Amino acid sequence: MKKLINDPMDFVDETIEGILLAWPDHLKRCEGTGRALMRADGPVEGKVSILTGGGSGHIPLFLGYVGPGMLDAVSIGNVFSSPSADDMLAATVTCDGGAGALYIFGNYSGDKMNFALAAEMAEFEDIRVETSIVVDDVASAPVEEMDTRRGVAGMFFAFKIAGARAEQGADLDAVKAAADKAILNTRSMGVALSPCTIPAAGEPTFEIADDEMELGMGVHGEPGIKRTGIMTADEVTEIIIDTLLPDLPFESGSKVAVLVNSLGATPPEELLIMYRRAHALLA
Amino acid sequence: MKKLINDPMDFVDETIEGILLAWPDHLKRCEGTGRALMRADGPVEGKVSILTGGGSGHIPLFLGYVGPGMLDAVSIGNVFSSPSADDMLAATVTCDGGAGALYIFGNYSGDKMNFALAAEMAEFEDIRVETSIVVDDVASAPVEEMDTRRGVAGMFFAFKIAGARAEQGADLDAVKAAADKAILNTRSMGVALSPCTIPAAGEPTFEIADDEMELGMGVHGEPGIKRTGIMTADEVTEIIIDTLLPDLPFESGSKVAVLVNSLGATPPEELLIMYRRAHALLA
Repeated sequence: MKKLINDPMDFVDETIEGILLAWPDHLKRCEGTGRALMRADGPVEGKVSILTGGGSGHIPLFLGYVGPGMLDAVSIGNVFSSPSADDMLAATVTCDGGAGALYIFGNYSGDKMNFALAAEMAEFEDIRVETSIVVDDVASAPVEEMDTRRGVAGMFFAFKIAGARAEQGADLDAVKAAADKAILNTRSMGVALSPCTIPAAGEPTFEIADDEMELGMGVHGEPGIKRTGIMTADEVTEIIIDTLLPDLPFESGSKVAVLVNSLGATPPEELLIMYRRAHALLA
Repeated sequence: MKKLINDPMDFVDETIEGILLAWPDHLKRCEGTGRALMRADGPVEGKVSILTGGGSGHIPLFLGYVGPGMLDAVSIGNVFSSPSADDMLAATVTCDGGAGALYIFGNYSGDKMNFALAAEMAEFEDIRVETSIVVDDVASAPVEEMDTRRGVAGMFFAFKIAGARAEQGADLDAVKAAADKAILNTRSMGVALSPCTIPAAGEPTFEIADDEMELGMGVHGEPGIKRTGIMTADEVTEIIIDTLLPDLPFESGSKVAVLVNSLGATPPEELLIMYRRAHALLA
């Protein structure tokens, strides 16, 4: 796969330089960190701060959701690797508004370990920290083992809903409750047509034939639940909706919010075609 | 290339269905058309209306720029094909606010022919129409033949600047002058790493080796100015800036607005890395 990059080892830091130059009115680097960014107008006095983080290579996750009504700060690591606990701690301290912090992130072992460490260190700085872990990927484990599921695109809803509560002035317990309720009511499923290539590796993360697709694959190339021939957009959408609905606390008349996203290389036209079918099925 | 679509012949109409379902508060179909959309709150009485159009397969061009401060209506055709003059006329009539219309579109023969026909028919409906044709692609002709250049991503600036003037209440002559000034001061250049595949064709539009890139290629696969080996993001950015600056009415101290975009399959990280280098060169 061809890439418009320089030295692959500079990929993450050059991406951060670019985003800081492109949005200087919105973002700034957290003091004492290399790879943690925060709201340019932060810290916001008296507001619960919301932080996230994870591996690089996922924009708009994680860098793209920092701002009013959303996140206060973010730490990123190497591509598909957890950020450091030191950066997370520095971000927590730098964006602290005195009302505590909520960490929202996906259910991956590296992120869990480092955010737990950062939370422990933050307590020594007299910052109370709570944690909400996103577990929306239905393909990664059965619903009975929901707390082992991976967190993927559904993270967006936890950011948005907790971010809105924090902006309203809710306290840390209420903001965490909003995030947890969003997580409990969010389900996602992915489908992969082609592999990605990590810049430093230079090779695709997996192989898939020209006439195949894989249902339920994770965002880092984690195996899915079924490899099939190429289906139509409508068929894929039907499988996804048929999988998500029985898994949700959902009944006729419930209101739903639908996010159809890609990992970067699917044209918006195709997402709109799938949204169209999802809308018809849900209506 | 794999696609998440249904019948390729339904690609355009299903895309339109999807965008109308996703943004019902922003967009509606123009009366009497199949493939023309307009502001949901239009027509806006007393405002110059701004219309565009072109082939499908370019989102956010052309469907993505309809709304307050931007465009009033848009017509789209088949993938990479001009919309019909009938749809353009119907859009012009439906979004008319009584202050005339400005057509802004890229310099392609089919679009020019159909917009000219629509403008002529609109005059019979007592709607005055002016036209601004975007010619920003430096790779498509020398600067002495600027009026033969293709219009590409720079169209965005004409939409934005003319849209702002119209929203301020400027008359048709002033809105056209703003669009023309934006066009005169905008330059773009593309670089291609891989071909696209038109759904109904099912085959890539051209071939390019795994170790090659092409400078100056057009958005429909029109030949560029040079095929080279893969260069770094910084090298590509330097070539583009070195080509655009001497072509512009630009001098030290001029203010510039920079747009780094992709045609859909380039990760935002790579665009940010290129923006970072462009920012350094311009600063």
